[in-house]
Amino acid sequence: MIEDEGNIEVHAPGLPVVAIIGDGQLARMTQTAAIELGQSVRLLAGSKNSSAAQVCADVVVGDYHDYDDLLAAVKGADAVTFDHEHVPNEHLLALIDAGYNVNPRPAALINAQDKLVQRERLSELGAPVPRFVGIDKLEDAEAFWDETGGQVCLKTRRGGYDGKGVWFPQSREELCRLVEEIDSPLLAEEKIDFARELSALVARTPSGETRAWDITQSVQADGICSEAIAPAPGLDAETAREVEALGCSVAEKLEVTGVLAVELFEDKAGDIFVNELAMRPHNTGHWTQDGAVTSQFEQHVRAVLDWPLGDTTRTVPVTVMANVLGAETDPDMEMQDRMVHVARRFPNAKMHLYGKTHRPGRKIGHVNLTGNDADATRRDARLAAGFLRDAVWADGYAE
Amino acid sequence: MIEDEGNIEVHAPGLPVVAIIGDGQLARMTQTAAIELGQSVRLLAGSKNSSAAQVCADVVVGDYHDYDDLLAAVKGADAVTFDHEHVPNEHLLALIDAGYNVNPRPAALINAQDKLVQRERLSELGAPVPRFVGIDKLEDAEAFWDETGGQVCLKTRRGGYDGKGVWFPQSREELCRLVEEIDSPLLAEEKIDFARELSALVARTPSGETRAWDITQSVQADGICSEAIAPAPGLDAETAREVEALGCSVAEKLEVTGVLAVELFEDKAGDIFVNELAMRPHNTGHWTQDGAVTSQFEQHVRAVLDWPLGDTTRTVPVTVMANVLGAETDPDMEMQDRMVHVARRFPNAKMHLYGKTHRPGRKIGHVNLTGNDADATRRDARLAAGFLRDAVWADGYAE
Repeated sequence: MIEDEGNIEVHAPGLPVVAIIGDGQLARMTQTAAIELGQSVRLLAGSKNSSAAQVCADVVVGDYHDYDDLLAAVKGADAVTFDHEHVPNEHLLALIDAGYNVNPRPAALINAQDKLVQRERLSELGAPVPRFVGIDKLEDAEAFWDETGGQVCLKTRRGGYDGKGVWFPQSREELCRLVEEIDSPLLAEEKIDFARELSALVARTPSGETRAWDITQSVQADGICSEAIAPAPGLDAETAREVEALGCSVAEKLEVTGVLAVELFEDKAGDIFVNELAMRPHNTGHWTQDGAVTSQFEQHVRAVLDWPLGDTTRTVPVTVMANVLGAETDPDMEMQDRMVHVARRFPNAKMHLYGKTHRPGRKIGHVNLTGNDADATRRDARLAAGFLRDAVWADGYAE
Repeated sequence: MIEDEGNIEVHAPGLPVVAIIGDGQLARMTQTAAIELGQSVRLLAGSKNSSAAQVCADVVVGDYHDYDDLLAAVKGADAVTFDHEHVPNEHLLALIDAGYNVNPRPAALINAQDKLVQRERLSELGAPVPRFVGIDKLEDAEAFWDETGGQVCLKTRRGGYDGKGVWFPQSREELCRLVEEIDSPLLAEEKIDFARELSALVARTPSGETRAWDITQSVQADGICSEAIAPAPGLDAETAREVEALGCSVAEKLEVTGVLAVELFEDKAGDIFVNELAMRPHNTGHWTQDGAVTSQFEQHVRAVLDWPLGDTTRTVPVTVMANVLGAETDPDMEMQDRMVHVARRFPNAKMHLYGKTHRPGRKIGHVNLTGNDADATRRDARLAAGFLRDAVWADGYAE
């Protein structure tokens, strides 16, 4: 049930309105990009105090599982998009039937929602994916264990994120126990012994224009993105071109509209495998806010409106993004004071905070640091994000 | 009388709230900078549909001439600032007495409000200003005409902007007639035969930290800023250092807090004269959004909160800002379509629109173009802004 009806009359005359289903930091940062373009956004938010809703002038408070709430939020909007993949597809199809311009389209989005569908589709297209199998019964899992010599990653087909919904069983017995216990459709994949993770970030418009940013290296800790380095250090030009072409090809063949992040494994032999797809601005693209001519947030707005895409050129040699995750216990020092310390030590740190309350491990912000040297910039970004997290300088620095 | 009470509960926990008195594009763009810092702003706006209020979650609708309205807007705010100079000083003094943290302070702000006070103060400080005199009676004007050989610029002490409140009489008689007709306190200045106009943009915190951006050349048409080029082309390094030092010195000696723009004339001999002061983000600093590590809008928020200031280094060789002014008649082509054409021709154009309705000559947006060459970048910025204004490519380009 809708709790709040929004405020449609506030939007600028002669400029489009994008409705965003979602209220997290991705919606928040998309909104600031839209404002600079002279636009404004309408949100369907779960709460007025959510990250995006607290800074938005036109919020419909409601539930994205409820078609009537969705309909209230998209009314009059020129385009409808999302900051997550969880809107029921039947609702999206109904919105399209009702004439709404939904981007990405459900036929593309299914590949970001259902990992088995994605694996099958990417295989058909010839994109490199790890060996995989859908798990319909226990025997499927046992056969796959034997086939891969026990190199198995078990995943729920839907709903996983930030390391949730992913298991690495250490034995055939553990795999079987997991398959029996987990009450959700599953797939199994061959575990890739990767050297590092990369991300190919591209945007595509309904008209078919595609633009890619530089290939980014991402670093995960406990399944959550902790850093992104752009461009990926030491990536040879030929591989970079191939990975970029792969990103563009996936966007084209799946007919993605908006930003697409193709998360990849690079193994020790330099071979590339697709890990995940996300069809929205993505954590591995936050560096574009301060390191590229056009940010992923501005580009997503342009793409879903079918505007020409912006220049994706880097403006600096290196940008490192480090996530700020909630510490185990919220430090005694207020966030404002932590920001002041970081601002003093790193005048070039670009701090992006999300207005979120503390919770251990929760993404509450990120810092972008730019520089000439990947290692030095990475060290600074880690120190800055670390201090914002727990009010401690990891290198013992004293002011 | 307050028409709307705002929405104080929406702000982020542990982060400050800045109240901005004003609802124009400067407040709008300060807001997007604040949002990225995890903050949000409260506005005292004249209307819900104003440039800033239409994209703000916490708006008090009221009148800045009314002390009760001001009090309602600043309640609970960590700092109070402005996007214009017109708040009555007695109200600001009362807010300070009531314990509010007002930046800039009225003792500094008076120099941006009253041009005669500013001229007297800058003279005392040894800053270069044109010869000037306060006009108390007709004889003062006549004597100044004779003294300057008729090189007279007549100004109202208060309230002028964008070429309003400034006259260049062509004869002694015209000067006398203007002095008799204008019902507002006046000053007269010697007209500077300038080669170009420059702007020294600096920020200063209450703690006394000062940072300057590169000196900018500004171009005016009919008294309204039409372009800004950063860094000012061909400015020799020594003059640039001197002008920067002048900007910092004015900020320090007047104890400005927040962003200060010192608008300057450079005459044909290369001598510099202060023209105007503005104590807020300024049109000649819009280029910093896309050409410097820290924008003037982020810096203003940091400064009024007494946070350490951000790095002001340029990120690109040249940035040119061109204003989009309302055409004589609003073109048939919708603003959205004009933006699409500009986006297609200039993928690196950063378009900033203000959500304003059309009015001839009104500042409705600006475009920042970055590049390696000042002339080429300037040409592109003019073309882009021109098309946004009247849907015509001034160079006859056909798509």
